[in-house]
Amino acid sequence: MTANPLHGNLLYAQSGGVTAVINASAAGVIDEARSHPDRIGRVLAARNGILGVLRETLVDTAGISDADLGRLRATPGGAFGSCRFDLDPLERNAAQYDRLFAVLAAHDVRYFLYNGGNGSMETCRQIQTAADARGYPLTVVGVPKTVDNDIVGTDCCPGFGSAAKYLATSVREVGLDLAAMTTNDGRAFVLEVMGRNAGWLAAACALAADDADAAPHLILLPEVAFDEQAFLARVKAVVERVGACAVVVAEGICGPDGKILAMQDRNQKGYIQLGGAGEVVAERIHACLGYKVHYALADYLQRSARHLASKTDTAQAAAVGKAAVRRALAGQQGVVGIERLADSPYRWRTNLSPFEAVGNLERRLPAEFIAADGFGVTDAFRRWCRPLIEGEDWPRFAGGLPDYLRLQLPLLAARLPGYAP
Amino acid sequence: MTANPLHGNLLYAQSGGVTAVINASAAGVIDEARSHPDRIGRVLAARNGILGVLRETLVDTAGISDADLGRLRATPGGAFGSCRFDLDPLERNAAQYDRLFAVLAAHDVRYFLYNGGNGSMETCRQIQTAADARGYPLTVVGVPKTVDNDIVGTDCCPGFGSAAKYLATSVREVGLDLAAMTTNDGRAFVLEVMGRNAGWLAAACALAADDADAAPHLILLPEVAFDEQAFLARVKAVVERVGACAVVVAEGICGPDGKILAMQDRNQKGYIQLGGAGEVVAERIHACLGYKVHYALADYLQRSARHLASKTDTAQAAAVGKAAVRRALAGQQGVVGIERLADSPYRWRTNLSPFEAVGNLERRLPAEFIAADGFGVTDAFRRWCRPLIEGEDWPRFAGGLPDYLRLQLPLLAARLPGYAP
Repeated sequence: MTANPLHGNLLYAQSGGVTAVINASAAGVIDEARSHPDRIGRVLAARNGILGVLRETLVDTAGISDADLGRLRATPGGAFGSCRFDLDPLERNAAQYDRLFAVLAAHDVRYFLYNGGNGSMETCRQIQTAADARGYPLTVVGVPKTVDNDIVGTDCCPGFGSAAKYLATSVREVGLDLAAMTTNDGRAFVLEVMGRNAGWLAAACALAADDADAAPHLILLPEVAFDEQAFLARVKAVVERVGACAVVVAEGICGPDGKILAMQDRNQKGYIQLGGAGEVVAERIHACLGYKVHYALADYLQRSARHLASKTDTAQAAAVGKAAVRRALAGQQGVVGIERLADSPYRWRTNLSPFEAVGNLERRLPAEFIAADGFGVTDAFRRWCRPLIEGEDWPRFAGGLPDYLRLQLPLLAARLPGYAP
Repeated sequence: MTANPLHGNLLYAQSGGVTAVINASAAGVIDEARSHPDRIGRVLAARNGILGVLRETLVDTAGISDADLGRLRATPGGAFGSCRFDLDPLERNAAQYDRLFAVLAAHDVRYFLYNGGNGSMETCRQIQTAADARGYPLTVVGVPKTVDNDIVGTDCCPGFGSAAKYLATSVREVGLDLAAMTTNDGRAFVLEVMGRNAGWLAAACALAADDADAAPHLILLPEVAFDEQAFLARVKAVVERVGACAVVVAEGICGPDGKILAMQDRNQKGYIQLGGAGEVVAERIHACLGYKVHYALADYLQRSARHLASKTDTAQAAAVGKAAVRRALAGQQGVVGIERLADSPYRWRTNLSPFEAVGNLERRLPAEFIAADGFGVTDAFRRWCRPLIEGEDWPRFAGGLPDYLRLQLPLLAARLPGYAP
């Protein structure tokens, strides 16, 4: 039997904070790969990202039935497990790469698809470079995902649209609640959303406002230094005009000193990795203006709310997965992304960027998307964002709850000795 | 023209914390009342509950088109405005009642329907008693609403089922996220939900678990004194077995001393009316067990999430509104409620309780619904709760977001001098 250099197995893995639609990308990868039996033997997946490759904890996705593949597409979280683990630079830990390629070789992996954010795209570059250097025949393709929308080289990131839709919906709903509860005394509501360095999710909440006086009234972005006095003056003005003020706060907002807003004792205890900004803002409003303040912290809810996914987003998540397989088969290494062709009607297609143009970089809100006063967004941002939350893609419900898949595939028998990354 | 004692206007008002479906009750009231033109002249509503009656800030719901009535049914928040205001006892403030009945008489109100919680049902009793005492022909009917499910005399409260469905869905989604993010180090996630004295919403999160090791792993109820050592031991055991632990915390949990859990400095500043329990629990897990902990606070989101309403709940909310009108026309004063006829298949009908049996009372989780170890619920609770989250009743979406109604009705011209309650 002659080895066919164009035939081999494909390995897929998930990395970083998961999203409501990363499994739609996984389903796209598996679906597309199954349609190329002439080129792809087995479609493997690693448990917990690159960690699972190093540990040789792999599964064979052939065990997923077509029906379950449909459920996987509509299940949030990372069905194969994710990780926050970066490879060492090759020159500092050659043994790590020896292990990595030993695992890839032991399972005849010729295509590696890594579904993650900025850091994961750097991992892709490291692996491709190392493969090329050692002459291991491998095509690496990065599949983008992040609710933060901070990946370079793509107009938007799968995961963002659904989180944006969920948050904008929540702000619209909360705005109605807040308006109903407002009698004479001023009221405020603060919602803290994800976004350490980039304010895309906070900005997306602006879509909730269907009227000039509707929530959110103010948005605090990490791209704009928090000016407490100016902010409080704006809150007061909104309350005097509307009766109540709804504020969206990105978790990563910083004061003029460049330091992140956080409760003092929280920093010392350090028990929550970030967060705190919303609570600080709520406290300042109450202490300085005397209003009743409610405060909500969406945390994981916003990135796992598959029940309210954007149809645009689920379609793009599947598309980048499928495109990654096709690129890999064509020997085209790089990071798949979304290229926007038109705003309205919205048209897009997938593209491919070199690893170097993406890995470890970060895309923040550009100046033209930030309102002149720094407390909101521009119409240009709204035009950009609106199509990304368009369309509903409800999961199947059973017994009143979404019928999500709990993927349980047996680990493949290890072919190599154990290894602790 | 002879005055017909059986003919007059109906006045509806909303009170207390609003819900995702209180407007479905309002729509039920209006819809039913419109079908009795022989008995009911105008269907009025007060702005901001009983405050609006005292202030004579009334609107005529005739201005709501049939199409908008359909949108009102699917809009969260309180479209007429709510309030947190209790009438004084008659013997302490007779003038308040004089004003109240002057407004009712000026607008020929013969039926008063008040949509609220425990305190509002006491308001109903006060008004009915005062009307009877002064010979003012009025039938008062209470329409229950609360996400807290703590109203006596009804098997469940409109508003609860939808909040329960939203929270259980969120916990199921977060559980998948948490599982994906778990590698070797322990992880925990804490979600704080509403429930000051009654743990119904926290308990409902138990429905999220579709498997013995699925989230939520532990539930902290206000009905059970928080035993920190026992709790931490359970968290540790869950993490050692499953890898991660998801905890649902009712905002009102108390320590063995009967004091509510809250951050010390929070109490002093008092900037958030309650809350804090989830943050305390998250902090204890991190400090004592060293796990990474994420923490979410659902706050208003859970009671305004109309996008994920329970169909059972929206049906019951409309039904209690309609039933209240029919009871009022029959001269049957009291509080409408839901009577359960069977668990599975679920069957129910509306009932009526005397004001005295409902007002100002509070229904907590009964012992048979609380797990023996105090960290969860029983199968009896699950059987009771399951039908209440059954069915989806999506609102209409436009542009990617729910198309909610912003009701804007002009105030009726005042017929009386101004009055400040």
